[in-house]
Amino acid sequence: MKESAFTPRVENMNNILKKEGIDCFFVTPSSDMKYLCGYSIKGDERFLALVLAPGHEPFIIANILYELQVTETPITEFTYWPDGEDPFALLKTEMEKRGIAHDTIAVDSSMPALFTLQLTSLYPDAEFVNGSPLVQPLRIYKDRQEMDCMIEATAKADIALKKCMDKGLYWIGKTESDFMAELAYEMTCLGLAAPGATVAVGANAAVPHHNTGNTVIEMGKCLLIDFGGTYKNYSTDMTRTYHFGEPSAKFREVYQVVLEANLAGEEAAKAGNELQDVDRAARDVIEKAGYGEYFIHRTGHGIGIDCHEGPSAGAGETTIIRPGMAFSCEPGIYLPGEFGVRIEDQVLIEEDGSTKVLHKLPKELTVIK
Amino acid sequence: MKESAFTPRVENMNNILKKEGIDCFFVTPSSDMKYLCGYSIKGDERFLALVLAPGHEPFIIANILYELQVTETPITEFTYWPDGEDPFALLKTEMEKRGIAHDTIAVDSSMPALFTLQLTSLYPDAEFVNGSPLVQPLRIYKDRQEMDCMIEATAKADIALKKCMDKGLYWIGKTESDFMAELAYEMTCLGLAAPGATVAVGANAAVPHHNTGNTVIEMGKCLLIDFGGTYKNYSTDMTRTYHFGEPSAKFREVYQVVLEANLAGEEAAKAGNELQDVDRAARDVIEKAGYGEYFIHRTGHGIGIDCHEGPSAGAGETTIIRPGMAFSCEPGIYLPGEFGVRIEDQVLIEEDGSTKVLHKLPKELTVIK
Repeated sequence: MKESAFTPRVENMNNILKKEGIDCFFVTPSSDMKYLCGYSIKGDERFLALVLAPGHEPFIIANILYELQVTETPITEFTYWPDGEDPFALLKTEMEKRGIAHDTIAVDSSMPALFTLQLTSLYPDAEFVNGSPLVQPLRIYKDRQEMDCMIEATAKADIALKKCMDKGLYWIGKTESDFMAELAYEMTCLGLAAPGATVAVGANAAVPHHNTGNTVIEMGKCLLIDFGGTYKNYSTDMTRTYHFGEPSAKFREVYQVVLEANLAGEEAAKAGNELQDVDRAARDVIEKAGYGEYFIHRTGHGIGIDCHEGPSAGAGETTIIRPGMAFSCEPGIYLPGEFGVRIEDQVLIEEDGSTKVLHKLPKELTVIK
Repeated sequence: MKESAFTPRVENMNNILKKEGIDCFFVTPSSDMKYLCGYSIKGDERFLALVLAPGHEPFIIANILYELQVTETPITEFTYWPDGEDPFALLKTEMEKRGIAHDTIAVDSSMPALFTLQLTSLYPDAEFVNGSPLVQPLRIYKDRQEMDCMIEATAKADIALKKCMDKGLYWIGKTESDFMAELAYEMTCLGLAAPGATVAVGANAAVPHHNTGNTVIEMGKCLLIDFGGTYKNYSTDMTRTYHFGEPSAKFREVYQVVLEANLAGEEAAKAGNELQDVDRAARDVIEKAGYGEYFIHRTGHGIGIDCHEGPSAGAGETTIIRPGMAFSCEPGIYLPGEFGVRIEDQVLIEEDGSTKVLHKLPKELTVIK
């Protein structure tokens, strides 16, 4: 393969396969494929796979229709099949030609049964294993290229939400869905793909995974926006909670507690700490303020190519925080029937061990009136 | 299960399974699941499946987190597993309790290897087959509920594109991506989910699957928009080609040929004809005009829950057109380096055998100046 940021990833992967006694790893379109060779095609009914085998050059098997795209990856060996021919017969020939063993075969966890069943028929005596859990330990630690993508992705998300919030009282009378449509529009213009959002007004904000709907934005209500998209394959995920019109004293108090919990979590997000320390620090603030029972989820999740990946910032997670790790810090307080507040940033542990809070959009209470 | 539009679908499916000697069918989140019980969840790492077995009541196995959602389906039997427990052990127990055989097991073609490999371990002596090709013959013929969803979906798509095109010269100086962002916004506001589009200016329109990019919309250029989304699980897909500023005589000629081909294809889209007749009728017009070599794809594809499904309107496709079938009619002429024109509608064969062209947006050449 061509020398690139992907070379050490494939080398590390091959070392893991060798150590685990796995002869080869068939990777179909998935986040693992994006990680290992940068190719971000959406899978379809035409078999396409990256084949890794320790001691062998990696190659891609694809329909000839995809020639132009696969040659843009750092992979340099290809074998193509045309429509009407059997890709699995070709795969078998190619494996034999290269002398790749197939006693133990790994496949990526998202490979469709359409292909998995063909492979188990092709190699009926092989032991098949899920290879994705072996990629995870590599994906936890982002390299420079990955960190730069995440920094860009979060900066774009900041701009998109700011553009929407700058419209101020324009939103009064609009629905959650209207807000989502405009936010998705801004994200798309900025080059963020696959925009998605939970937009929740008032009591809806007390439901952590509320389905954005037709509730109207009104004076006297809060507006919670949890949203993200992808940039060059990497995810962004942030939450801000605003208030239209003067908030109640209770809302102000709860907001302040969540903000302090968010800051305490980020303060604990230090290289050398355990991931659960982030959860503990944020949760302590909320518990001390008497709202412990209303903080009903973990404080954060790993993030990278997938929006949720790797170890959580949750109770019992003893993984040590190290350079290259990226995760969210998103404490919340949810008062059923009243309102909810969540403040979420992504944090990244830089190469020098310092902590970077990637989202820069102000998080002090903003009242729109 | 509750009596609903899904009841005959499940009954038909069970009859097919019985005829094929298949004991049970595990359907994970997929278009097959949407078809069989209307449940449109996006699959994740928690095993969730609809289990069909001829002679047995269908049931859903799901994580307890999904209880609220699965009880909204017409299925009435459920078995839940909590985080930390093994869903496959539960599945095995449930299968035994119900006396469901498992010598031959079908799985949906998109089931992730994460689950397929667990099932092949759970039942190592079973024969596993891809069940999706057995659902396809049912999905070709839409029932009333499905037809109504498609009629609504296409009407919404018409409105979304009209709203964008009504902006006229506003688009001069904007990019393909800008257009896509606004079109996606309009679609979202109208309730069309998963908006997607190919927007192509000038010579880009000569590349049938051009990637929407930063090419600027200018006077003297054509603008091709091929776009769609989903409404209540059903897809819409349409293409229109416009021209900014006075077009050349050649563009006018090519446009007219494509329009006549589109109309001829739709004229041939009659119950009793073969699907290939649609292709033949459209292709004849283009060949007679001397542009045959520039019409480089089939005339249409089946459409329903998936944007591309079922038999094509292409050469050699002898499937008889019958009530309930829905497919696209989308001839095009692509002149590399110059321009491309494609006009695409969806047609639906109604219950009485009449043909309904679902998209109503005018398709005569529209020049914006």
